[in-house]
Amino acid sequence: MKADEKNIRPIWFDNDSETVKIIDQRLLPHEFVITDLSTADDVIMAIKEMYVRGAPLIGVTGAYGVYLAAVHSKTEDELIRECERLKAARPTAVNLVWGVDKVLSEVLKKENVSERIDTARKEAAVIAEFEAENCRKIGEYGVSLIEAISRKKHGKPVNLLTHCNAGWLACIEYGTATAPMYAAYEKGIDIHVWVDETRPLNQGARLTAWELGRHGIQHTVITDNAGGHLMQHGMVDMVIVGTDRTTYTGDVANKIGTYLKALAAKDNNIPFYVALPSTTFDWTLRDGLAEIPIEERDPDEVRYIQGADHTSPLKACGQEISPDEIKYVQNSEQHTIRSVLVPPENSPAANYAFDVTPARLVTGFITERGSCKATEEEIKRLFPD
Amino acid sequence: MKADEKNIRPIWFDNDSETVKIIDQRLLPHEFVITDLSTADDVIMAIKEMYVRGAPLIGVTGAYGVYLAAVHSKTEDELIRECERLKAARPTAVNLVWGVDKVLSEVLKKENVSERIDTARKEAAVIAEFEAENCRKIGEYGVSLIEAISRKKHGKPVNLLTHCNAGWLACIEYGTATAPMYAAYEKGIDIHVWVDETRPLNQGARLTAWELGRHGIQHTVITDNAGGHLMQHGMVDMVIVGTDRTTYTGDVANKIGTYLKALAAKDNNIPFYVALPSTTFDWTLRDGLAEIPIEERDPDEVRYIQGADHTSPLKACGQEISPDEIKYVQNSEQHTIRSVLVPPENSPAANYAFDVTPARLVTGFITERGSCKATEEEIKRLFPD
Repeated sequence: MKADEKNIRPIWFDNDSETVKIIDQRLLPHEFVITDLSTADDVIMAIKEMYVRGAPLIGVTGAYGVYLAAVHSKTEDELIRECERLKAARPTAVNLVWGVDKVLSEVLKKENVSERIDTARKEAAVIAEFEAENCRKIGEYGVSLIEAISRKKHGKPVNLLTHCNAGWLACIEYGTATAPMYAAYEKGIDIHVWVDETRPLNQGARLTAWELGRHGIQHTVITDNAGGHLMQHGMVDMVIVGTDRTTYTGDVANKIGTYLKALAAKDNNIPFYVALPSTTFDWTLRDGLAEIPIEERDPDEVRYIQGADHTSPLKACGQEISPDEIKYVQNSEQHTIRSVLVPPENSPAANYAFDVTPARLVTGFITERGSCKATEEEIKRLFPD
Repeated sequence: MKADEKNIRPIWFDNDSETVKIIDQRLLPHEFVITDLSTADDVIMAIKEMYVRGAPLIGVTGAYGVYLAAVHSKTEDELIRECERLKAARPTAVNLVWGVDKVLSEVLKKENVSERIDTARKEAAVIAEFEAENCRKIGEYGVSLIEAISRKKHGKPVNLLTHCNAGWLACIEYGTATAPMYAAYEKGIDIHVWVDETRPLNQGARLTAWELGRHGIQHTVITDNAGGHLMQHGMVDMVIVGTDRTTYTGDVANKIGTYLKALAAKDNNIPFYVALPSTTFDWTLRDGLAEIPIEERDPDEVRYIQGADHTSPLKACGQEISPDEIKYVQNSEQHTIRSVLVPPENSPAANYAFDVTPARLVTGFITERGSCKATEEEIKRLFPD
């Protein structure tokens, strides 16, 4: 997708250096840094430290980890051990285990070391293309929904709202929730996207806004509190979000706050769609609220907020500041990435990372096989396998 | 209320210095600074720059402004002109106009300059007591609702949720939404408060958490996104919020995001109460959604977030930093108050400051005359005048 004046993916194999390259997503949107991954250890670090995030991207990163492990392992046992370490980098990431195992099983079919290395690289690329193609198809099916609204509005801008980042940074290309937006943009449909900032980690404000802005799509960042008011006043035509896990009955686990937007959409008769590749359906879970475990993360993610400090130090706190200190703040392209503490130091915080939106609040799903209603019957009709 | 190991109000007259003292709320919770107001100009600045905020407190600050104007004015004309300037400090603040006019009309009944000064000081104190007493009564009526839940839960902690700051910092004493919490605490009822951080200005995380913490009330800061999930899982027993303006039909204008919490409370059968002095009812408005204008504020309030920077500069961005720079960050009790930019520099933001919760989502009102349901009939029965 478009970033930095050329097309780019969040991960790719660089033929010249024979390394895997990624965007370091921790520093976005203020710094655009590309990092090399040269060993399996680099891959483990990149996953653990969240240089990369998003289920599909973590899967592809793990897959390329197998390639790097194949390059450096001296024996088959060592390669298998390295792959176990890769899979442990984020134990809850289903795609990571899937991506690593898929590449490894192909690699182990070959005898010769250089064949194994070649196979690993090619299989990782196959997984990346698979994810990108799923998203492309989601865009294709989703755009018809946007097109219908645009016709109804006689070409006036279609206002979409999204929560968190289900974009290409998480998904190789197009994203899931954002795929219909890019497809609409390509077709010349006039759209505008309300981007929920998505506290606590602000993936909407930091990543979705950056993706859309770089691609030239009209968007406005709003607080997570604002969407209900916008819907009450006819300023949202459709909501599209992603999901981390969806039951076969249509209950949707997604970033915390999604449920509140679904309630407001229902209250105002606004279509609420969830975009997902079919791999995100969990065919074993019937009751999302009772059965999907909700991760509780570090409370400091709520207490501290990261951003770029552009403060003119001369103005900071009304204190006079020496030229040395000015130089400090002006480091790193006129800003420093900092975290600031918002609540009192002694106030505890809680950080529930996801919530579950019951199927009754979901208008429909947009998948790589088409759209369907959020009912067990309709989901199983689209995915009889 | 308790802060800094003694009881304090957000504004008071200091007999020794013959000045008006306020807490500078801009720096809370990280710095607790008391500022003197010695002239009407000081008062205007304190209101404009938001040293003080919250309708009742702005009214009382304006009232003390009349006292300071009376001290310094040489003629009656000058005093009246100063009062006009005071009222213009925040043109939309109904309480400010009311407070200034009330004190001024009493002052003008006196001839003698020193009598006028005395009258102004006493009348300002009367208004402060009036606001404090309203809040005390709201607490008295509201605590019975909490007590009933506590009995039903056999004394297990009652989990309350509140949005924004409708606390004593805005209301002289007790606050509105927080008054029943303080009353419950005094009665020894076991309570715990979920504090919505309340983006964009984080009045919940910054002010409500600080108030509750200083008073010793158990609380946990959460993102505005989290409340729905907590309600789905039985972790909230009752919601209490304040309001900026409420129609006589029961539609509630309050800080943006209140509507989303009301939807979630309704969806999970959780009582949703609004605490307010009767002065907040607008007896001219029937339809809150159509008739209450919603202020759009500076988008930079969404884009920039203020907090305390405790960063060890040695770790910042992995750069090596000189001892000079360390000194800089360690200024001001080991931290500096800073604003950081979250979204991309070029991404626009929108900042709708309030939303309207329709009466159908409100369980009831808690007022200084008692509680009532959110219907025109019940509101008018409680306030026949």
